[in-house]
Amino acid sequence: MMIYLGGQLVAAAEARVDPWDRGLTLGDGLFETIAVRAGRVARREAHLSRLRDGADVIGLKVPFGDGALAEALAQVIEANAIDEGVLKLIVTRGPAPRGLLPPAPVQPTLLIAGVAQELAPPEPATAVIATVTRRNEHSPLSRIKSLNALDNVLAAQEAARRNADEVLLLNGAGNLAEAAAANLFLVAGGIVITPPVHDGVLPGVMRADVIKALGVAERSLRPADLTGASEAFLTNSLGIRPLVSVDGVAIGDGQPGPVCKEAQKIV
Amino acid sequence: MMIYLGGQLVAAAEARVDPWDRGLTLGDGLFETIAVRAGRVARREAHLSRLRDGADVIGLKVPFGDGALAEALAQVIEANAIDEGVLKLIVTRGPAPRGLLPPAPVQPTLLIAGVAQELAPPEPATAVIATVTRRNEHSPLSRIKSLNALDNVLAAQEAARRNADEVLLLNGAGNLAEAAAANLFLVAGGIVITPPVHDGVLPGVMRADVIKALGVAERSLRPADLTGASEAFLTNSLGIRPLVSVDGVAIGDGQPGPVCKEAQKIV
Repeated sequence: MMIYLGGQLVAAAEARVDPWDRGLTLGDGLFETIAVRAGRVARREAHLSRLRDGADVIGLKVPFGDGALAEALAQVIEANAIDEGVLKLIVTRGPAPRGLLPPAPVQPTLLIAGVAQELAPPEPATAVIATVTRRNEHSPLSRIKSLNALDNVLAAQEAARRNADEVLLLNGAGNLAEAAAANLFLVAGGIVITPPVHDGVLPGVMRADVIKALGVAERSLRPADLTGASEAFLTNSLGIRPLVSVDGVAIGDGQPGPVCKEAQKIV
Repeated sequence: MMIYLGGQLVAAAEARVDPWDRGLTLGDGLFETIAVRAGRVARREAHLSRLRDGADVIGLKVPFGDGALAEALAQVIEANAIDEGVLKLIVTRGPAPRGLLPPAPVQPTLLIAGVAQELAPPEPATAVIATVTRRNEHSPLSRIKSLNALDNVLAAQEAARRNADEVLLLNGAGNLAEAAAANLFLVAGGIVITPPVHDGVLPGVMRADVIKALGVAERSLRPADLTGASEAFLTNSLGIRPLVSVDGVAIGDGQPGPVCKEAQKIV
């Protein structure tokens, strides 16, 4: 695999990250997970725009313009001969001595990797509600894709222990926020609903397109709202997945529903 | 600088971390910041014990025993001729393909660096209360030293913007939790008080020793409690720092107090 690092393509096995990169020592960086379809970057502008938003939140001046990033993404697609697959782009604040405050100036690290992978519509999923951790709606990190993903790892581990495919996270107030790596949509009373960003929700790129395409109400949801839902589904950049049960209780009739199928058309 | 990585001492400039190390891509790892005094690791057992606790929380089997870790720490001290200084130990879940769930088996990364540095008692500090982010008392990560430190970075940046030396973080419930890289102690009504771990507080190694030495009540504190305090101070592994004002309001008479001076004797 060839990855883009330090301004050029390098063999992944030879790529080196500095042990004092703040991405490693502090999780001080951002990432995007991006679909490749028909050899092209899907929703590129939306991903790059969200990356800029994240950089603003953490006060990072990204020294790579959209044109340079687009060119680097294209190079990774070509070097790895990806027709359908996934790109992962990471920008960190770069290497620095010990300490929370970044040095001035910083030398951010840009890393892009890509793998060919079939992006077929995912199988219907079961989920549990995480008991081990919650989203922090009081932190701006809940609204950006930072390298601080260990809560998501803990939640995914809980799902695996409890034999579920996916896991839903509550926020501190007990509202439903999202899955470990996807946004949540419910259909109830004929209305499509997704939790608002201020409930500790990542503004997903696919979430935004589903909201536009289907006309979606953004309102806080409680776990009890799952009981009255006729269907539920999960969205991220790689696809849209029907959610057919939570904590062992079927959503609606326990089958993928028509709104999910409609949503899947925009992928 | 020589660092310990991959089971041996290497020159820092040549040390290489795999770009797919989960410590970088997900913040999936732990760290300890450890003082070196008179050429020896200070509070070694307490640090290694806390590292084990953190590993339990994230479900990481650390394949390095306490003896091996102690030996590696000693090698870093010797290779860098440190009489007084700071060690930073990082353990990550190691390299892995994309995805939240760790592979089985994992090959954890152990990284230890050290720098000589004078550990004189720090100057009295001013602080602000962070408005940009809060501790998440609903996540077990608030109780361990994980590589997810970006909230702490954001808080430190706010302190710098507001010309304060330190920053205090509230938790989601609005209780005082801790500083960006230190625990908080107040003296009020003749009692020494520190917030309890369940308020989203890291169980600091120095915090534990101060609690033992001074007899400290662990109880939730509100920002308003700062007003009635006769003194306040911050503790971490590297020292104990008097806190003389918060958000521009003096604590007590605005001078380091006798309880802080007493606490500093145990450093």
